Amino acid sequence: MEGVMESVTISDIQRAALRISKYIVRTPLLQSPLLNEQVGASTYVKAESLQRTGAFKIRGALNKLLLMNEDTRANGVVAFSAGNHGLGVAAAAKITGCRSIILLPKTAARTKIESCQWWASEVLFYDPQTEDREVVGRSIAELKGMTLIQPFDDDDIIAGQGTLGLELCEQLKEQGAHPDSALVSCSGGGLAAGVSVAMTHIFPAAQMFVVEPQGYEKMGRSLRSGKPERNSSVPDSIMDAIIGPRAGSRTLPILRSRNVRGLSVSDEEALYAMAVAFGTLKLVVEPGGAAGLAALIAEKADFSGQTVAVICSGGNVDRNLYIRALEHGHSPRLGRLDAPEPDSFPGKLPI
Amino acid sequence: MEGVMESVTISDIQRAALRISKYIVRTPLLQSPLLNEQVGASTYVKAESLQRTGAFKIRGALNKLLLMNEDTRANGVVAFSAGNHGLGVAAAAKITGCRSIILLPKTAARTKIESCQWWASEVLFYDPQTEDREVVGRSIAELKGMTLIQPFDDDDIIAGQGTLGLELCEQLKEQGAHPDSALVSCSGGGLAAGVSVAMTHIFPAAQMFVVEPQGYEKMGRSLRSGKPERNSSVPDSIMDAIIGPRAGSRTLPILRSRNVRGLSVSDEEALYAMAVAFGTLKLVVEPGGAAGLAALIAEKADFSGQTVAVICSGGNVDRNLYIRALEHGHSPRLGRLDAPEPDSFPGKLPI
Repeated sequence: MEGVMESVTISDIQRAALRISKYIVRTPLLQSPLLNEQVGASTYVKAESLQRTGAFKIRGALNKLLLMNEDTRANGVVAFSAGNHGLGVAAAAKITGCRSIILLPKTAARTKIESCQWWASEVLFYDPQTEDREVVGRSIAELKGMTLIQPFDDDDIIAGQGTLGLELCEQLKEQGAHPDSALVSCSGGGLAAGVSVAMTHIFPAAQMFVVEPQGYEKMGRSLRSGKPERNSSVPDSIMDAIIGPRAGSRTLPILRSRNVRGLSVSDEEALYAMAVAFGTLKLVVEPGGAAGLAALIAEKADFSGQTVAVICSGGNVDRNLYIRALEHGHSPRLGRLDAPEPDSFPGKLPI
Repeated sequence: MEGVMESVTISDIQRAALRISKYIVRTPLLQSPLLNEQVGASTYVKAESLQRTGAFKIRGALNKLLLMNEDTRANGVVAFSAGNHGLGVAAAAKITGCRSIILLPKTAARTKIESCQWWASEVLFYDPQTEDREVVGRSIAELKGMTLIQPFDDDDIIAGQGTLGLELCEQLKEQGAHPDSALVSCSGGGLAAGVSVAMTHIFPAAQMFVVEPQGYEKMGRSLRSGKPERNSSVPDSIMDAIIGPRAGSRTLPILRSRNVRGLSVSDEEALYAMAVAFGTLKLVVEPGGAAGLAALIAEKADFSGQTVAVICSGGNVDRNLYIRALEHGHSPRLGRLDAPEPDSFPGKLPI
């Protein structure tokens, strides 16, 4: 294995888990027989949408902040983010008692803006059409003497997100499951890289897949080319949590050395996966957080008869989009959830 | 305390927990700072909607079936149910390897019917307008030589449901919380009675409340009169899981000896609580399962400044009703979730 791979090790992740465990939720690993029947695979879903702040991002942020020296931390932290990373940093800052400034695109989901406003010391907005978030973020940090917290290209962040993979593997073992495949949403690759370190350590036979929005397959291309690629086109996608502009330079070598493969899903496939998670698992999952489940349901690789671990990584979705998922989620393959039920309220009541 | 109270003891519940733990999910106890701010109380939500079969009922059913002698169990079991109890019995039967016949009202939520059809050996329907489910259930059991599993008036069922209360108390202790109040949905009272035994044993200072649909306050009236009352009127309610006709004769003395108080909520209040659970906890909760949360949000008693434990007991809700909750859930007191967000799809995308 390449030397660069050792940038984040299993013991980094184990130490991170000890460091952050008292501040986070040990999210459950769930099964649904209806889901298993639908996808033809024994599926274990890690319900990380139930994490504090509604996404996994608080894991990396807490690990990072708890590793900073106290004086630096006391000056405060800055994060730029489409939402979940900002929320995670703001919450970690509040928990560790330091100031935070979160820079959000003015188009962020309202549920993320409101939550950020609760956790953060200050929320600022930028215009994603005309401003570069990295430039704005850096200049704010410099001006205020605060530390900019990277969303993914930072080994402490990667190790923190890896605690999700460690927990997943522990729970799989507790339930006697040996995964053939593991599916995780991916943008910059912080979560995927951390999870891949834990997964390949504990279940070396498992094939890991990162799942991206169609048209945003920067990591898939990076895994093939061997260098961090950017999203060249910017089509619309509802998977707002995983449409960042570039793959990480520290995450890519980790993923590549572990033979992680790239898949992608459409908005329609993500919406359908959200509807399936609602019906079978009783989980609220946001579009980007449902990408892994969507790839399984839409058979983006051959998972039939396998044991599959899927991470549902976030649940921060606005109501209107969620309603849209429940109304219009459909799949050419699966009939069960296609047709809306006849209206069961207030006419036909199950008395 | 009265002798009859000792029908179910804390050690019955502890033994039930050991008996069933490997078959069930240890559902998480969640907090949301946004929810705490909204209700003005430190709120701990037990996410039992994530239990296998989407509700707590499998706990009691498993305890009952595992305590039956093997020959009796091998003949199979029958349950009549508006849905969740039937699902729980069917799943427990499949897990313990025996046959099950589940009798459902033909008006049951489709999500419950489909799940029952997956778990049960056989699903039969009755007409709630013209048939008495207890009479039909008993005659089927007699005809087939199977055992009828009561939904609540059975000490083994009560002890099994009590494991939810035991788990809740353990998790509260782990999180350093000492509840002033605890809120739980109630129909016949099996869950409430079991939880009350655990809660008053571990947190004797906590005041427990059972929450019923408005117009269905049979347990509230029973707690005052001292005898099991029936629902006299049958108005429409969307809380299909908790509109059974009568309070339990074995559950009532348990609840009464522990000074449990009765509250009730409207359909609108339940719908709003479902929308709050979606937005703040990322949980899919069914109307009857949201009654406790609804009573807290609608301030049915003075909870301000308290530490409050709430059980969200089920998540089996059809899509159309859930969409209705998200679209129309509103509250005179709470502005935050009142107005639907401007449509965030597909026009305004958070890129």
